[in-house]
Amino acid sequence: MDFKTSNAEGPVDFINLDDLEKMAQKVVPKGAFGYIASGAGDTFTLHENRRSFNHKLIIPHTLMDVEEPETKTTFAGEKLPAPIIMAPVAAHRLANEKGEAASAKGVADYGSIYTVSSYSSVDLPKVTDALHGAPEWFQFYFSKDNGINRHIIDRVKEQGMKAIVLTADAMVGGNRETDARNGFTFPVKLPIVAEYLPDSVGKSMDYVYKSAKQKLSPKDVEFIAEYSGLPVYVKGPQSKEDVDRALSAGASGIWVTNHGGRQLDGGPAAFDSLQEVAKAVDKRVPVIFDSGIRRGQHIFKAIASGADLVALGRPAIYGLATGGSAGVKQVFEKMESELKLVMQLAGTQTIEDIKHFELRDNPYDPSFDTSNDLKLF
Amino acid sequence: MDFKTSNAEGPVDFINLDDLEKMAQKVVPKGAFGYIASGAGDTFTLHENRRSFNHKLIIPHTLMDVEEPETKTTFAGEKLPAPIIMAPVAAHRLANEKGEAASAKGVADYGSIYTVSSYSSVDLPKVTDALHGAPEWFQFYFSKDNGINRHIIDRVKEQGMKAIVLTADAMVGGNRETDARNGFTFPVKLPIVAEYLPDSVGKSMDYVYKSAKQKLSPKDVEFIAEYSGLPVYVKGPQSKEDVDRALSAGASGIWVTNHGGRQLDGGPAAFDSLQEVAKAVDKRVPVIFDSGIRRGQHIFKAIASGADLVALGRPAIYGLATGGSAGVKQVFEKMESELKLVMQLAGTQTIEDIKHFELRDNPYDPSFDTSNDLKLF
Amino acid sequence: MDFKTSNAEGPVDFINLDDLEKMAQKVVPKGAFGYIASGAGDTFTLHENRRSFNHKLIIPHTLMDVEEPETKTTFAGEKLPAPIIMAPVAAHRLANEKGEAASAKGVADYGSIYTVSSYSSVDLPKVTDALHGAPEWFQFYFSKDNGINRHIIDRVKEQGMKAIVLTADAMVGGNRETDARNGFTFPVKLPIVAEYLPDSVGKSMDYVYKSAKQKLSPKDVEFIAEYSGLPVYVKGPQSKEDVDRALSAGASGIWVTNHGGRQLDGGPAAFDSLQEVAKAVDKRVPVIFDSGIRRGQHIFKAIASGADLVALGRPAIYGLATGGSAGVKQVFEKMESELKLVMQLAGTQTIEDIKHFELRDNPYDPSFDTSNDLKLF
Amino acid sequence: MDFKTSNAEGPVDFINLDDLEKMAQKVVPKGAFGYIASGAGDTFTLHENRRSFNHKLIIPHTLMDVEEPETKTTFAGEKLPAPIIMAPVAAHRLANEKGEAASAKGVADYGSIYTVSSYSSVDLPKVTDALHGAPEWFQFYFSKDNGINRHIIDRVKEQGMKAIVLTADAMVGGNRETDARNGFTFPVKLPIVAEYLPDSVGKSMDYVYKSAKQKLSPKDVEFIAEYSGLPVYVKGPQSKEDVDRALSAGASGIWVTNHGGRQLDGGPAAFDSLQEVAKAVDKRVPVIFDSGIRRGQHIFKAIASGADLVALGRPAIYGLATGGSAGVKQVFEKMESELKLVMQLAGTQTIEDIKHFELRDNPYDPSFDTSNDLKLF
Repeated sequence: MDFKTSNAEGPVDFINLDDLEKMAQKVVPKGAFGYIASGAGDTFTLHENRRSFNHKLIIPHTLMDVEEPETKTTFAGEKLPAPIIMAPVAAHRLANEKGEAASAKGVADYGSIYTVSSYSSVDLPKVTDALHGAPEWFQFYFSKDNGINRHIIDRVKEQGMKAIVLTADAMVGGNRETDARNGFTFPVKLPIVAEYLPDSVGKSMDYVYKSAKQKLSPKDVEFIAEYSGLPVYVKGPQSKEDVDRALSAGASGIWVTNHGGRQLDGGPAAFDSLQEVAKAVDKRVPVIFDSGIRRGQHIFKAIASGADLVALGRPAIYGLATGGSAGVKQVFEKMESELKLVMQLAGTQTIEDIKHFELRDNPYDPSFDTSNDLKLF
Repeated sequence: MDFKTSNAEGPVDFINLDDLEKMAQKVVPKGAFGYIASGAGDTFTLHENRRSFNHKLIIPHTLMDVEEPETKTTFAGEKLPAPIIMAPVAAHRLANEKGEAASAKGVADYGSIYTVSSYSSVDLPKVTDALHGAPEWFQFYFSKDNGINRHIIDRVKEQGMKAIVLTADAMVGGNRETDARNGFTFPVKLPIVAEYLPDSVGKSMDYVYKSAKQKLSPKDVEFIAEYSGLPVYVKGPQSKEDVDRALSAGASGIWVTNHGGRQLDGGPAAFDSLQEVAKAVDKRVPVIFDSGIRRGQHIFKAIASGADLVALGRPAIYGLATGGSAGVKQVFEKMESELKLVMQLAGTQTIEDIKHFELRDNPYDPSFDTSNDLKLF
Repeated sequence: MDFKTSNAEGPVDFINLDDLEKMAQKVVPKGAFGYIASGAGDTFTLHENRRSFNHKLIIPHTLMDVEEPETKTTFAGEKLPAPIIMAPVAAHRLANEKGEAASAKGVADYGSIYTVSSYSSVDLPKVTDALHGAPEWFQFYFSKDNGINRHIIDRVKEQGMKAIVLTADAMVGGNRETDARNGFTFPVKLPIVAEYLPDSVGKSMDYVYKSAKQKLSPKDVEFIAEYSGLPVYVKGPQSKEDVDRALSAGASGIWVTNHGGRQLDGGPAAFDSLQEVAKAVDKRVPVIFDSGIRRGQHIFKAIASGADLVALGRPAIYGLATGGSAGVKQVFEKMESELKLVMQLAGTQTIEDIKHFELRDNPYDPSFDTSNDLKLF
Repeated sequence: MDFKTSNAEGPVDFINLDDLEKMAQKVVPKGAFGYIASGAGDTFTLHENRRSFNHKLIIPHTLMDVEEPETKTTFAGEKLPAPIIMAPVAAHRLANEKGEAASAKGVADYGSIYTVSSYSSVDLPKVTDALHGAPEWFQFYFSKDNGINRHIIDRVKEQGMKAIVLTADAMVGGNRETDARNGFTFPVKLPIVAEYLPDSVGKSMDYVYKSAKQKLSPKDVEFIAEYSGLPVYVKGPQSKEDVDRALSAGASGIWVTNHGGRQLDGGPAAFDSLQEVAKAVDKRVPVIFDSGIRRGQHIFKAIASGADLVALGRPAIYGLATGGSAGVKQVFEKMESELKLVMQLAGTQTIEDIKHFELRDNPYDPSFDTSNDLKLF
């Protein structure tokens, strides 16, 4: 298949992540960009992800003796420049020819954790190489065949990965109508899952998802935990009930997400679910959050709501499209610097201070639209 | 009268029901399309019908051991592929020359229940023939003359129909200004009610409604139930008070609707009324719901809110306009497949699981507009 | 002054009152139309007047044995075709050369009560003549000189008027920026108040209001009631406190209004104040309501919220502009017929039924905009 | 640096402050205007500042015996024509060549208090001269070097200033993307802080802020109070916690603000914070309010919510740009006259009456957009 996309590498000039999204749209083919940027169904949930951050307000505190706030944090023994990591995203080669090799390098250069997707378009060893020692997690789309699953886990362990993220909210593809309108099919290979999906090129997302296991249950968490000996972070719980189910099955962390509004439309913003999940988890295990982060204030609010880490998906891919590894690194740096500014203005010196910062409920519906609508098809 | 409309028959290529509506608009004359698509007054209630589904949110549940969810259900002994039936809609020949003969075939091919309107533009025997054995219900616009009503019931029973739906919320026509602007009058005959309305061609909706009985009361429910021996479903209650009145009169089911926002403007979304009605009914009789269903998630939310069945009106007519019986069938299939996807993502295996699924109140007003505004005049 | 406006007389073809407003705009000079249609300040309150009706919802009741609902009502011994009367509006000759002579005839032909404004552009005897026996009320803009006030009351009594309406919410003109932008000054004479405002032509609204008394107090109510012996309806109270003050001073009725959003911007919709006022009045005296009525459902909701009568201001003037007395009559008839339709659909046979009808609070903010924005300058 | 801006002096013809803003935009260079008018980040908080005033409603009171309301007030012994003062704003020479010399003259001509910014583009003695005896306050951006701070305080005292305002919410510049888009750097000198920032010309806002002290604490309040012997008003507290911290440190007043939405985006409207602050202060010290005032009703609502004074920032600068000192004076007069009109319509005779006026909570979200969006880059 003759798929041409960006091969950019080098610094990018952008003001904010909304700008960067528009810049990425110009260098990534329409179908691929639509796949990356779009959401499910009426995109209600996609839009709620962004709007929801203003459901909580930061009352800035003054005279707090703060200077040069410290964004550094530690997670599972890893020292990070900020509580911002790379979310698993399929097929980076849609956005940049170098694919995961470049994004991994960018995240490693920044100094954070990289989560490699089962649907990576670059195979494991090359990703690990590009990380030059930075911590690597593996996001698992389960095969129906546990023999294959064991083999994948073996490979993951071989790379020295630190954790496995089990995606529990995407056993099938969401109703992504942009892909249907653009007639989008996968133009790239997905080598990690080649054993159960040998022929991804030219296939629809639906086909890809259907090749994986739909019938996920707590037993799968137990299986991965036991076979791998690695911490398993379950990605998907948005309620107390789901937290309990995941933790009972041996999850070592909960990843709150609605898959960037790409799976179920008509559900809540992920940020709105974060508060309930964090309360249910009650600090027993770490909480990771993604879906909608575009601003330093969003990171501040997520951490003040109980997240230990936030993960970037689409923004990092936009950095990859426009600047390769350098662009990815810039995206992380941008979020860190916005976060740092918010910390100073809010009167918080450390990430720990944010965790104790009390957000204010917004008694009003945020009607001012800060979403960034794009023409995708 | 020289009325030309679509005569399409065959598969239709559409992404979602909003698309289909726009496609239908292109093949149906303006006046007829305006009659079908428009609402009453300021169309506040019409728009609320769509917006209201996001008053309740689906928190997807994960690790639920779900695969290939089962949409099949049983209603009054009938096995249905999904809890989706055909709502009564007047004069299908506005949308397709073949009228109810084609829509009935489409619903029967899909395998569900067909509700024939008193204002059908095709006479009863032909509708029944087209259904080739599929279950048929009759929607009753009452005559002022009980002799005529008895005769209509006799004919209904002759066709072997399974139930009578008494429309209680439309004794007069709503204030449909689009029809006034388009100068719309009925271009087709309404053979079922020819005894009390012999001359529908060239008449306004107002005239048509005025020919039927306005002064509906519980006695009319009793009369139909007694004379027909069939279950009577009262279509219109939106409050506990109305449920009690209908059940006391012998109703065998409650059909929650606001007539697609075509009757009273300034009232609530039908979906907002569903919760109260379902609580008042308290499973004593079945609950059927229509008004605003355009998505699988809407069906999921209606069932989780207490509906046993949902009915499609306008969407089926849009399928009829664009693809005849095949288009109608596709509309039902589309809704079934969207529902199935939502079930998988929500973690529900069966329709019974949906009935026990707890929706979350949305504490925020859904400001993102998912309504599909059309230029109608 | 050379002021030319509409001189229309005869039936008007319109679908609803929003249409009529646009039609009126075409036949009335820009400055005059701007004066009539515009509101104060940012027009927040003007818009709230319209939006507020959807703060309350009508749940239609079914099987209510209703047919041909009866809109007739009685007020202070007067039999009216519907609880809809004419609000006081200044200077009808802005909208139609015949001015109050035509509007009075229109209201009388319809059969309702006419409230003549102190700022009438036609003198009292001619208005009374045009009413050919229909009930007439007098709206009082007080002079600073009680001698003049006595003289005006003498004249009012001479005409056989039935009540005096004391406008308490407009001792100064509101901040109507449209008038400033259009450079609008009064182009017509105001004969009734010629004693204290001999020279209205070429004067601004501000000048006009400043000529009247600002320092209104309960004593003025007492003075009018005592000197005239007529019932005094105080126009303006929007709170319990104000109701108590007016009733203690001898008011025979409360008129809830915010002057059509023309006086104080940043206050509530008049309809939102109606509930509190009605509760405070507690049926001790009648309640009259204006500000925002454009639909039959608005009248229904106002009456169900405690109003005994509603008054039409701008809509009647639009009828006057486009059709003279015939247009005015049509506006009243249109509102009556819309009200009747709502009554049938809501399941109410009489005005008394509406008074006992329980509206439902809308738990959601009505975001769908039904306001009719016009370009006024 | 060759910076050309308005040199207007003389009366301006404008209807309201939104008009004036658009007029100012035409005479001020793009970069400078963008700096003045823009907000931080997504400008959510900037927009909330305006929208929030309709979170509280004025129920106008009638028959209150009010005429010619009195806006005069006294603050700390100063007699003011209205409770409206000049907020500190940096670098007035961006808007008018005469800079603070003209704005100070305008405020003095009006008769109110002038707050001179540390980042004034005209040096202290000239500002004081222009004030010809009118009360002058000093807004302090602290140096990292207390020797410099003492020297600045010495100079402030030399000018006979009455109070020091410590800005506690802007130790760093907000994320003002408009400046970044316009490539805006300071084109003018800032003589007051030349000791610690000798070279402001050609520097970014970020650079300017970074030159001042970030690490503000209660000790700085104590230091200023003690060294200066003047009352210190802390500008920035938006919560009870911050009020307590400031008062414990010796603050003589609290200035509620969010810096016009220029610092932290994602926080509440300043007006929404005012209620909590006023309650926490509980009349122990005066409360001053800015951020979003564009209307007389906003001033009324701020005072009824607990403010003793309101301060104008951008509006005064727009007056300066369009009319020099005369324009500044007109802005204050306009606000006074709008306030007076609201007082009359609300039924309040004095500023004290406003302080006892009970605003009504708006139970609905104000959806009507009264904000004045400008194209800034």
